[in-house]
Amino acid sequence: MEELVPGNSLITETPQEGRELAILMARKSIRAIQTDGEVLKAGRLKYAEDPDRLIDAAHVVAVEFATVAAANHYWRDPSWKRDHRRPTG
Amino acid sequence: MEELVPGNSLITETPQEGRELAILMARKSIRAIQTDGEVLKAGRLKYAEDPDRLIDAAHVVAVEFATVAAANHYWRDPSWKRDHRRPTG
Amino acid sequence: MEELVPGNSLITETPQEGRELAILMARKSIRAIQTDGEVLKAGRLKYAEDPDRLIDAAHVVAVEFATVAAANHYWRDPSWKRDHRRPTG
Amino acid sequence: MEELVPGNSLITETPQEGRELAILMARKSIRAIQTDGEVLKAGRLKYAEDPDRLIDAAHVVAVEFATVAAANHYWRDPSWKRDHRRPTG
Amino acid sequence: MEELVPGNSLITETPQEGRELAILMARKSIRAIQTDGEVLKAGRLKYAEDPDRLIDAAHVVAVEFATVAAANHYWRDPSWKRDHRRPTG
Amino acid sequence: MEELVPGNSLITETPQEGRELAILMARKSIRAIQTDGEVLKAGRLKYAEDPDRLIDAAHVVAVEFATVAAANHYWRDPSWKRDHRRPTG
Repeated sequence: MEELVPGNSLITETPQEGRELAILMARKSIRAIQTDGEVLKAGRLKYAEDPDRLIDAAHVVAVEFATVAAANHYWRDPSWKRDHRRPTG
Repeated sequence: MEELVPGNSLITETPQEGRELAILMARKSIRAIQTDGEVLKAGRLKYAEDPDRLIDAAHVVAVEFATVAAANHYWRDPSWKRDHRRPTG
Repeated sequence: MEELVPGNSLITETPQEGRELAILMARKSIRAIQTDGEVLKAGRLKYAEDPDRLIDAAHVVAVEFATVAAANHYWRDPSWKRDHRRPTG
Repeated sequence: MEELVPGNSLITETPQEGRELAILMARKSIRAIQTDGEVLKAGRLKYAEDPDRLIDAAHVVAVEFATVAAANHYWRDPSWKRDHRRPTG
Repeated sequence: MEELVPGNSLITETPQEGRELAILMARKSIRAIQTDGEVLKAGRLKYAEDPDRLIDAAHVVAVEFATVAAANHYWRDPSWKRDHRRPTG
Repeated sequence: MEELVPGNSLITETPQEGRELAILMARKSIRAIQTDGEVLKAGRLKYAEDPDRLIDAAHVVAVEFATVAAANHYWRDPSWKRDHRRPTG
């Protein structure tokens, strides 16, 4: 299966990076479901034009972010982050 | 990617500020999805006029707030907050 | 921004009060989204008449309550509550 | 506000009772939203006849139960339950 | 009220059994809501034929499973399971 | 009941494998509900063609992943993983 967790780690340096990871994980998840034996839709998903879908997508990001934030102990302690940071690459 | 977590921290002084952060994170998340390769809709989202969408949006805020509240140990102990407060900026 | 967390605390004396806080937080959240740059709808939201919306609203209350309950250690220990009760005001 | 948490406690003797509490809390929550300034609908909600609404209602019960189960440490240790059981009455 | 948690325990031997319990709990929950004062629908729910409802039902199972998995400390430690296994029968 | 948790364990080596497990669990869950006494739909679910369903499916994956990630302590500590890895086979 293709890459589902960029960097193969949930540990990030900052909340901002954690949020970006959450968005990427949600996107890759949608892509993994979409490509499974189906014809990939030409062009991009149109959910970005539909308020309903936008809020649903934001909901998924919020759930993914909850996991990433817990993984990083909510970025409370800077020293902890140094020891667990995700591999660059 | 644009700023997704204002102040780049989940730590806030009070539940009120935590709630405001949750609302902002939800908004920035919607904006990050919306602007990704799509034409930004002229004007604002109309979800504020639709009861269905309002409740869905409130749901996302509740999920974001759960993460922010956990990050702040639910603002139980005032002394803890002083040591972890988010950088002003 | 207007008041989003009544009393600016998640700590309550009892589960009943915690539940009331969860309902209030959900309501204030909807109001904060609704009033943001939009014309406030005349009259009240009609979701109370629609079974679909009622269940969705109850879902949001359940999510808010999960946070409030965790903040209060589920009101397990009465002595804990005395030390952390939310300021009256 | 009317009673929202039967017995004003999340502590129950067994998972079965915890589940019943979760269902009751969801029902009382719907009622609290519904009666707030609105005319109570004659008769009962029709969601029990609609598969969509049934699954949505079951979802709310699952979320409420997660909170009740956490409050009871998942009923893992019988001795713990004896010390924290909810007041009868 | 009828049986809502089979075996009246959240403790299972394995993740597989935990998953089966989650599915059963979701089903019994739907049944408890459905039978409450309403005429039971002849035949079975048709949600199994509708992709929308199937995903919604899978969502409920995921939420129930999160609770069951937490109850069992995610089945990490085999020795723990021996001490807390749910009563047979 | 058929296999619901591949390998009958929530422990995985990496976040990538944890994500794959979450997707598989969601799929098997849908299949378990679908086949229960109903005629299996000819062909595959069409949700992969519908943006709404895709986001809903991604939501389920996010919830399943939250459980898998918690089970693995978010893959923070490599040495922990060696002791708890899921049985191959």
